[in-house]
Amino acid sequence: MSGSPSRRSLLSMIGVVAGSAAMYHAMTELGYAQGSSFTGPIKLSPPPAGTTILILGAGIAGMVAAMELRDAGYQVQVLEYNGRPGGRNWSLYGGDTYTELGGATQHVGFDPGQYINPGPWRLPYHHRGILHYASRLGVALEPFTQVNYNAYVHSTDAYGGKPQRYRQVQADFHGHVAELLSKCTKQNALDQSVSKQDQEILMLALRDWGALDGNYEYKSGIASSMRRGFAADPGGGLKSVPVPSEPSALSDLLRSNLWSAIASGHNYELQSAIFQPKGGMGMIGKAMGKDLGPLIEYNCKVTNIHQDDKGVTASYVDSRGGTETRTANAKWCICTIPTPILSQIPMNVGPQMRAAIDQLPYLAALKVGLQFKRRFWEQDDQIYGGHTYTNLPNSTISYPMWDYFSKGKGVVLGAYTFGRPAYIAASKPPEERIKDALSYGSQIHPQYMAEFETGVAVAWHRVPWALGCQGAWTDESRDVHYNNLCAIDGRIMLASEHASRLPGWQEGSVTSALDVIGRLHARVMGT
Amino acid sequence: MSGSPSRRSLLSMIGVVAGSAAMYHAMTELGYAQGSSFTGPIKLSPPPAGTTILILGAGIAGMVAAMELRDAGYQVQVLEYNGRPGGRNWSLYGGDTYTELGGATQHVGFDPGQYINPGPWRLPYHHRGILHYASRLGVALEPFTQVNYNAYVHSTDAYGGKPQRYRQVQADFHGHVAELLSKCTKQNALDQSVSKQDQEILMLALRDWGALDGNYEYKSGIASSMRRGFAADPGGGLKSVPVPSEPSALSDLLRSNLWSAIASGHNYELQSAIFQPKGGMGMIGKAMGKDLGPLIEYNCKVTNIHQDDKGVTASYVDSRGGTETRTANAKWCICTIPTPILSQIPMNVGPQMRAAIDQLPYLAALKVGLQFKRRFWEQDDQIYGGHTYTNLPNSTISYPMWDYFSKGKGVVLGAYTFGRPAYIAASKPPEERIKDALSYGSQIHPQYMAEFETGVAVAWHRVPWALGCQGAWTDESRDVHYNNLCAIDGRIMLASEHASRLPGWQEGSVTSALDVIGRLHARVMGT
Repeated sequence: MSGSPSRRSLLSMIGVVAGSAAMYHAMTELGYAQGSSFTGPIKLSPPPAGTTILILGAGIAGMVAAMELRDAGYQVQVLEYNGRPGGRNWSLYGGDTYTELGGATQHVGFDPGQYINPGPWRLPYHHRGILHYASRLGVALEPFTQVNYNAYVHSTDAYGGKPQRYRQVQADFHGHVAELLSKCTKQNALDQSVSKQDQEILMLALRDWGALDGNYEYKSGIASSMRRGFAADPGGGLKSVPVPSEPSALSDLLRSNLWSAIASGHNYELQSAIFQPKGGMGMIGKAMGKDLGPLIEYNCKVTNIHQDDKGVTASYVDSRGGTETRTANAKWCICTIPTPILSQIPMNVGPQMRAAIDQLPYLAALKVGLQFKRRFWEQDDQIYGGHTYTNLPNSTISYPMWDYFSKGKGVVLGAYTFGRPAYIAASKPPEERIKDALSYGSQIHPQYMAEFETGVAVAWHRVPWALGCQGAWTDESRDVHYNNLCAIDGRIMLASEHASRLPGWQEGSVTSALDVIGRLHARVMGT
Repeated sequence: MSGSPSRRSLLSMIGVVAGSAAMYHAMTELGYAQGSSFTGPIKLSPPPAGTTILILGAGIAGMVAAMELRDAGYQVQVLEYNGRPGGRNWSLYGGDTYTELGGATQHVGFDPGQYINPGPWRLPYHHRGILHYASRLGVALEPFTQVNYNAYVHSTDAYGGKPQRYRQVQADFHGHVAELLSKCTKQNALDQSVSKQDQEILMLALRDWGALDGNYEYKSGIASSMRRGFAADPGGGLKSVPVPSEPSALSDLLRSNLWSAIASGHNYELQSAIFQPKGGMGMIGKAMGKDLGPLIEYNCKVTNIHQDDKGVTASYVDSRGGTETRTANAKWCICTIPTPILSQIPMNVGPQMRAAIDQLPYLAALKVGLQFKRRFWEQDDQIYGGHTYTNLPNSTISYPMWDYFSKGKGVVLGAYTFGRPAYIAASKPPEERIKDALSYGSQIHPQYMAEFETGVAVAWHRVPWALGCQGAWTDESRDVHYNNLCAIDGRIMLASEHASRLPGWQEGSVTSALDVIGRLHARVMGT
């Protein structure tokens, strides 16, 4: 390692490793997604004239770094593997072509206005960094529907395989929990820990929140139906007296495992308000690419990264199959290439950064987009956006969250899955993945087969420029390698979601980029 | 009463009164809002040529009846008090003028694109009738945000008057409930009612849903912060190790009463997905009015309704101050005039319908729209849509649910309240109501006073053509009068939300209209 951390960053590293280790381990354990440290636009003083920066990768991290460094007065050059900006910020539209590792090529057949986001698709309200850039670049945002009470939760092992509505499962879980706790309260089981006065308030709160009846029971009636829905809805005039629905028995509910689906909307990263760009997540990458214009060179496959005491040189060939090697040179290099790719590229960094790169795999993930002739989930099932969860290998069905009530077609996300099912899918050709998604989905929506038109399936382990969807940290690997991955090694430094505590989120890329350019700038300015 | 119910409708009335009385009483008790009996477009066979129908009121009920009867081949005429269609389906835009009872006139000063909906503002996913007409008429819908985890819940009596975030209160309530019930479970308090095997699943479910730690405790840490938010959010690179937040103690939470705000989004009528028309709820009324064209005569104040064995004659004057009385005549009359107005209009119906009309008051309600120079709730507080709840008399603050992230102005619903505070507001001039809303709101948003531009305040008890916002049924009054209100009295019949089991909802108006025209058509056809 040719560079060494400053005293200040060393102290901050020690702080991270010692005091807060338990904290970020636990976060990693949760698997995904926290908040953001973005507090406002970065302000960099003018650097010495002619200070050059080479950025590898025109994804979110690379382009944020490029925009800010350019604005500060740096001379910036960006090399990008693909013929488009964005990286994993990516939407697939009709007319697009995508060739995966192994050579299978998909020609996307969606109608105009239809798309899927193979990568990120959500913008939480507190991801202030990525929201700042969307706003700065004029990318219009619209609400994303995380929780839909009328979508399904489904298990092949529960309720005879019949999909249940989210509202039914949530209402029944709340209701039974409230009834059980109110019973315990009445039986004085809380007397050790809760004052009598607080117990009285608790009872009122449980009745209200749990939709209990006057006897603190959760059972068929108006109160519970006002949460879980009616067997027959009320109406106007003399017709349609409402008929209450019948709650699920506690034991059936618990054994169904469907309760595991009701907390997703409470997660800090998935809480409303949550947004998406109009027209696809790729709109953000496109806008950044447009903003940077000729500073990005596309179709560049980096083959070598070499630093010495004067600068950094990257060698690259045309990613579409060229053989001529070209080079780009700069005083500093910010590398955002996904670690499964970067570990295959010769680069003379110290053993600590090298070990950090080599040990960091990317997660497997699968997304399948399915275009249907009509929006039967809206027209037949009254599901407008949101997600259906299932124990089938497609895991999630997400309904389009734009053009609601449109009489036209729609693209459903027919599978969204990580880990083992995603590995299995990656081992099959794309058309088989689509067939599987149709077969699983039709167990929930029988309309699938008759209405299907065309699909596309992205298995992230076969994405040639990423080999996975996001950095797959473990508690142990983060302990040993995270700070080494993020430290500046001589003239080379890394940025990406994989160099953040927000793995898999664009906000991780943004804050990673801002953090690293802040440290770079301090190095350049000698402060 | 010159007409008598058919045997079939009599049986159905008996069914209502006897078997299901408890049911709809309890629903009324809940104060508002259930589902819908709409199952698809109504199909009416062609009536005898020249069958005329007079409809009083071009609100949702009147216009739905008019469209369907016209389409079936009836000769329809509609008289409307206002100079616009829609009735309580109403949006106020800049340039609009509104004169209330007592003469106070407000000139709405909103900028283009800004509006408030003084009346209905939400379209639940299961209100299939009103959604059908919005779709049929090409009214574009967009998501309404009922639950915003980053909006505030506020009590002057709790947490030193400091607004709390919805996510904090919800997470803490769930967490404490889960911890208490898991403790009871461990202490065998559930052994009588829940099997050991189910108890084990329950414990897992409580830990997951309640964000408990490994010891089934709800306390400061990553698990609880992943619901309630962090003291310092995580970020990228070497900066911003997250700092967990501190949950509220159970007793503080219970005594705050803020828990009462967390169930609103679970209500069947308010669950996501829920929608609003782009550009204001009034878009639906406008579209219906356009569809009906010259069938509606505007500015007609009905002064007398008289029926005999040949038909119905309505007398009316120009509502803008005319004195000349004109008349309209038809074989049948559907009257949608709000009961507080209708009870003042001479109309020869039988004593049962008369009593039903005279006893039905309308609820008091207040809505205040406030235009601010900038969207500080978004820019400063990261609140994008949804509601803040407070124990102050303004009750609710609702943030605009369109043009998110716009750099321009915004109109906040600065007060939305029923009952006593609405009565008090109605007794004050509009500018005082606006001042009050500003004074209350600034206790939550200190930016209010500096950013305020212009406002409008609609107190429904002073709306000259309604005298309230919706039919105010009680269990007792519904028991005695509901069926009499809905029955056809000779050649006169009523339709509106007040003649439905969905009081205060447009779906009540739609299903009321469809129910009554179905019965009317059967009468006409002699079936």
